[in-house]
Amino acid sequence: MLRAPETQPEHASLAAAVLGGRIVELCDELAQFSEEAGRLTCTYLTPAHRAAASQLASWMKAAGLDTSIDAVGNVIGRLPCADPNAKTLIVGSHYDTVRDAGKYDGRLGIVTALVVAEELSRRQFKLPFHLELIAFAEEEGVRFGAAYLGSRVIAGRFEPQLLMRRDASGATFADVIASAGGNPADIPGLARRPDDLLGYIEVHIEQGPVLLEAGLPLGIVTAIAGGARYAVSISGVAGHAGTVPMASRHDAVAAAAELTMSLETLCRNTPGLLGTVGQINVPGGAINVVAGRCDLSLDIRSEDEGQLARAIADVHARIAQIEQSRGVTINVTELLRAPVVPCAESLQRRFADVLQKASIPVRHLPSGAGHDAVMFDGLVPIGMLFVRCGNGGISHNPLETVAAADAGLAASVLLDLLMNFQVDEFHDGR
Amino acid sequence: MLRAPETQPEHASLAAAVLGGRIVELCDELAQFSEEAGRLTCTYLTPAHRAAASQLASWMKAAGLDTSIDAVGNVIGRLPCADPNAKTLIVGSHYDTVRDAGKYDGRLGIVTALVVAEELSRRQFKLPFHLELIAFAEEEGVRFGAAYLGSRVIAGRFEPQLLMRRDASGATFADVIASAGGNPADIPGLARRPDDLLGYIEVHIEQGPVLLEAGLPLGIVTAIAGGARYAVSISGVAGHAGTVPMASRHDAVAAAAELTMSLETLCRNTPGLLGTVGQINVPGGAINVVAGRCDLSLDIRSEDEGQLARAIADVHARIAQIEQSRGVTINVTELLRAPVVPCAESLQRRFADVLQKASIPVRHLPSGAGHDAVMFDGLVPIGMLFVRCGNGGISHNPLETVAAADAGLAASVLLDLLMNFQVDEFHDGR
Repeated sequence: MLRAPETQPEHASLAAAVLGGRIVELCDELAQFSEEAGRLTCTYLTPAHRAAASQLASWMKAAGLDTSIDAVGNVIGRLPCADPNAKTLIVGSHYDTVRDAGKYDGRLGIVTALVVAEELSRRQFKLPFHLELIAFAEEEGVRFGAAYLGSRVIAGRFEPQLLMRRDASGATFADVIASAGGNPADIPGLARRPDDLLGYIEVHIEQGPVLLEAGLPLGIVTAIAGGARYAVSISGVAGHAGTVPMASRHDAVAAAAELTMSLETLCRNTPGLLGTVGQINVPGGAINVVAGRCDLSLDIRSEDEGQLARAIADVHARIAQIEQSRGVTINVTELLRAPVVPCAESLQRRFADVLQKASIPVRHLPSGAGHDAVMFDGLVPIGMLFVRCGNGGISHNPLETVAAADAGLAASVLLDLLMNFQVDEFHDGR
Repeated sequence: MLRAPETQPEHASLAAAVLGGRIVELCDELAQFSEEAGRLTCTYLTPAHRAAASQLASWMKAAGLDTSIDAVGNVIGRLPCADPNAKTLIVGSHYDTVRDAGKYDGRLGIVTALVVAEELSRRQFKLPFHLELIAFAEEEGVRFGAAYLGSRVIAGRFEPQLLMRRDASGATFADVIASAGGNPADIPGLARRPDDLLGYIEVHIEQGPVLLEAGLPLGIVTAIAGGARYAVSISGVAGHAGTVPMASRHDAVAAAAELTMSLETLCRNTPGLLGTVGQINVPGGAINVVAGRCDLSLDIRSEDEGQLARAIADVHARIAQIEQSRGVTINVTELLRAPVVPCAESLQRRFADVLQKASIPVRHLPSGAGHDAVMFDGLVPIGMLFVRCGNGGISHNPLETVAAADAGLAASVLLDLLMNFQVDEFHDGR
């Protein structure tokens, strides 16, 4: 049910439109820092990445924030509260990109928070808590194959062995930090104490078509999906495509097709469950040979831990059935098992209140992709706001788009949330 | 229904056992000529292949046959009839092999006919027709990527442009023939006039498990399956495995899986139809990306031309349905369309009579693989006898086996067929 837009005067929409135009402009400017000509690629601690960090830092300074870049490259802008003992609310997202990226993944959240901070400064609005805007240096995992490096450090989840990870050139993470002027020994000291934090909020482009298809500019994230990834190798019996009767076959491709269809059917019949076979291959396969081997990948995700666990059990049971019925052997190697990260009920309610006040229909949806917010799971309440992704919902692609109007609405919602944030009522944890 | 073994005295089985032992021995001897140490590889006009031809020629001479090696390497042993105007019955198979081959594919038929010719000579039995045993030089297509080269020449189907085909070293077919002492200009003259021929008979290892599973030593081939091969490329829409809802996907792998399952179901429900997806791949696929593209192969075979045509139409209709229901584009390229080659009813009946006389249960079965007999389709009546393939029916593999007893039965059946062959009753063509 929508409430009447009682507190949404005409000039508020105009203000949102102005903010939105500025957000899109800043994302365009930031996209100029790329390590590849003609397309946006900004991976961890490359010159382009460091230039992007400098640009972000100068914008934060201009917005009146106490600004610094930490040892791993996180750009931090702090709007301190008059009470030094107040807690800190972090609003963050990442500024690194995948290769040949869109301009909004990660950056939209940073820039939205930046224009909100500009507004707070301009209005000389005093928040009853410290506000920190953090532009995380690394989330995509492109350079070292380990994701969330920036938020991992801030959340105190950085494992020292990550320092020995090597990039494609053979340089370790420790080398790369040191050559950018950082000291790896400083990393443990960058972790925040959960007791000092009020919560973590992230605005992010949806990277999918749900809001687009629903015709809605914004959505409240209920949870960041958990998931499991498997490498599956099916061993059957190779045979002549013209001489082995259908009933005598132990066809590895047919077994893989059955498993693929089972996963799809399970997910189509289970709202909230996603299942994908993104890779499939017959090593040394020939057109006239019944395949003796087929390798494939499985990716299963859900916003509900119980649903995810049931789906994983279902898929394993199906695999056992296929082994039995087809006389094949199926080896399954777990590559990843990430738990569901729920967003705090309290923050979901706060976002819903603000949306209703602004006459924006309230839509809840899970995040299928991981975000920096994951690193704060179990430490502080997490809140996430999704912004509609244009162009069919495409992301990790230069075709990724965000409408300025939607970005402006996200900024005005975040501004309202911060200005009306009741520290006291915020005690239910997640 | 089996007839009592009225004309099968005890010594006949003993004779068969002796013949079988000799056949397996000769196949072992022939397998010593290989171009690769430790495994059998005997491809067209290599030194090993020419040595095998010499060995075959010397065995044929010793058996009393008028023996020659023609310009393309076919080894021909002729047992002439007293009447020079009599027609010729050809009994043949091939002596080239695939790489890392078994010892019986092709060679079993040659050697079986050889020991039968030895028996005819030993008994000084006069046939009312010329008998020609032809060991075809090339059937597998390994060296020039064109199959049936030896029988193609004899059947008069050799296309001159084949002379310009090149092997992996860049040598043309014409070069290779010339350097082995043959004259490419002689090839057209090697073709037999169909009017001079009585028929074509081939004994071959089954290369599949049908006789093995039925517990039968021999089978009468009804037809050599026709087939179609397709390269299929499915274009969907790539997407994030965590953000694109199941209902919004245009998943190329799921479409490929559905097509694979459809083909399997169609073939399982249609006795005689074989369908295989031997190759499948997602170019540049990633575990967390819904596939925007998936390539796969289709191989469809049947011994019944109408059934094959209906199956091809069904598969195309299914492809159109999948395009429609999944919003994907499916490109289909036909790589091969080979018609069904039926074996002559008359020769099937003759084989059945001989089997029944020998108390061997009569089993008819199609050949899923192609054989030299294909080249004689439409020219003369074709007859084929399959010999049980051991070891699960495996072929094109060093594990390929034939039991000496089965080979001996094949020889005694062929001997009986030839000795009792009624030229006059043999007029129904195919």
